[in-house]
Amino acid sequence: MLKWQILDQLKKNPESYLSGEKLSRKFSVSRTAVNKAIKSLRDEGYKIAAFTNRGYKLISSPDILSEYEIKSRLSSKILGKEIVVYDSLPSTNITAKQLAEEGLPEGTVVLAREQKGGRGRLSRSFYSPMDMGVWMTVLLRPRIRAEEAPIFTIMAAVAVNNAIEKLCGIRPTIKWPNDIFLDGKKVCGILTEMSMEAETRTVYHIVIGIGINVNNRSFPEEIENIATSLNMFTKNPPGKSELAAEVLNQLDNLCAGRYYDKKKGDLISRYRSDLNMLGKKVKLIRGSKESAVTALDIDENGCLIVQHNDKSISVVNSGEVSIKVPGGYI
Amino acid sequence: MLKWQILDQLKKNPESYLSGEKLSRKFSVSRTAVNKAIKSLRDEGYKIAAFTNRGYKLISSPDILSEYEIKSRLSSKILGKEIVVYDSLPSTNITAKQLAEEGLPEGTVVLAREQKGGRGRLSRSFYSPMDMGVWMTVLLRPRIRAEEAPIFTIMAAVAVNNAIEKLCGIRPTIKWPNDIFLDGKKVCGILTEMSMEAETRTVYHIVIGIGINVNNRSFPEEIENIATSLNMFTKNPPGKSELAAEVLNQLDNLCAGRYYDKKKGDLISRYRSDLNMLGKKVKLIRGSKESAVTALDIDENGCLIVQHNDKSISVVNSGEVSIKVPGGYI
Repeated sequence: MLKWQILDQLKKNPESYLSGEKLSRKFSVSRTAVNKAIKSLRDEGYKIAAFTNRGYKLISSPDILSEYEIKSRLSSKILGKEIVVYDSLPSTNITAKQLAEEGLPEGTVVLAREQKGGRGRLSRSFYSPMDMGVWMTVLLRPRIRAEEAPIFTIMAAVAVNNAIEKLCGIRPTIKWPNDIFLDGKKVCGILTEMSMEAETRTVYHIVIGIGINVNNRSFPEEIENIATSLNMFTKNPPGKSELAAEVLNQLDNLCAGRYYDKKKGDLISRYRSDLNMLGKKVKLIRGSKESAVTALDIDENGCLIVQHNDKSISVVNSGEVSIKVPGGYI
Repeated sequence: MLKWQILDQLKKNPESYLSGEKLSRKFSVSRTAVNKAIKSLRDEGYKIAAFTNRGYKLISSPDILSEYEIKSRLSSKILGKEIVVYDSLPSTNITAKQLAEEGLPEGTVVLAREQKGGRGRLSRSFYSPMDMGVWMTVLLRPRIRAEEAPIFTIMAAVAVNNAIEKLCGIRPTIKWPNDIFLDGKKVCGILTEMSMEAETRTVYHIVIGIGINVNNRSFPEEIENIATSLNMFTKNPPGKSELAAEVLNQLDNLCAGRYYDKKKGDLISRYRSDLNMLGKKVKLIRGSKESAVTALDIDENGCLIVQHNDKSISVVNSGEVSIKVPGGYI
């Protein structure tokens, strides 16, 4: 599309002016078409200066989620081949699952500027207001059995931590199994869902929903003590498209090589070292029963190994229990 | 809708004539509206005789899948609350899954006059040409864990057999786990799929696809030796809506009582007695390996118990193996 080609040129020449005439010659279009493209870019929030006899210069880009801004930063092999950005959705996971049924390819990414019905594990709601964060779902079609799916949550958690560390210089911690924390408050949630055949347990597709609070300056009362955003932690939070692209690059890297077989040991080590509760007392919640246990370690499948008060040890998977970590629970 | 109200009246009075004037008074509408409704019914294939000074009389109803024709025969508690009939779909299962994501309620039934991309287990194709059968998917939202889902295939198989026995006077057999046979040929296939959370293994919804060959007089060469239809077995096959409704009534009955807990023993007994391979030699296919075994029984979960040549016994679930039954395999 012409406007993205022109934007490319403007970005490649941040110091000089590009004349409308030069642009119209370069892309073999009329001057009117160039003017229209510039107007359209300005409408999307790009600040473009225009000086008579000199031409156009990009002053600043808006902090928006857009296909162009994400794709121009991707180095991924699989993820982001198709990127669909919506203004508003009930939930990016739901739309991704519907697109998956329509046959959209592995690596499709669905984003929304806001989610009106964002959800987390166990159907909890996930607060995702307009333009405040990266609300994104990745579609994968791995040839796995249902039992293996939780590894994708682990991959996503490590990918988010890698991305935030790279762009913000701080590495968050992980509250097992699927929440990302900064200073005891949740900055990101992950929800992995899948569609499968009941008899053979063949997985058709997996969707990994990732919600990262970026620009929020405040939260609703119910969650203000347990939620945080990158903006509250760093003076210059990354742009949302920049962050989305970096998460996709990191996740793609972890997925590469028939997903995870080769690097599973490394992945689990990295995940383990990010966990924020090992060695600590946590509250184990199984149905209506709660007990205080010590979180010892995770095993090679990402299950949590805990020690009970009577010193007995058990392995729990996230399907069976929730845990409360002192200082933070969502 | 007026036309269904008028059709109800015509069906309730099969021997007498109903005047247009009487109908217009009964439903407080104009004579023109009555005429329009009669025309619309005729367009859908209802044969309605009209005699001057006497009125209308229903001569015959078309053999079509329609919400009206199905609903008017339902005695179900859960199934069929919402019925959606399409002319053509890629697959009723796919559409049902998409509608499920949009929040349609438990008991929603999706039907199509034809499927262009009907599928069976292991992504095999399922032949479903225009107006030749009941191509139907039922949406359920049971509170179960993924492991329990195969019981729904068993329920559907027994429901189909009950319905065919009631309407045709013949009881088909079942080729474990999900095919319905008449005289060694497949007359119906069942495909159960589900959507779930990866971590907690919470099932969001299950869709049960049921495809019954009803009116086919022939099949494509590739399947003509292994496929059959009700029409090939009985002079008066049931109408497609009649059959769809009866399957829904039967399945609803099996689902009732928080699905299956109470009646699981009865259900498995009924399923067992319908199996067409117990005591017989069957071919067990596990990946690329084939071995001849004797099918002994099924266990309480619907897994197949087989005896190998060395007399050892093992229990197989349909996720691991396929089997070939002499005289029929699809």
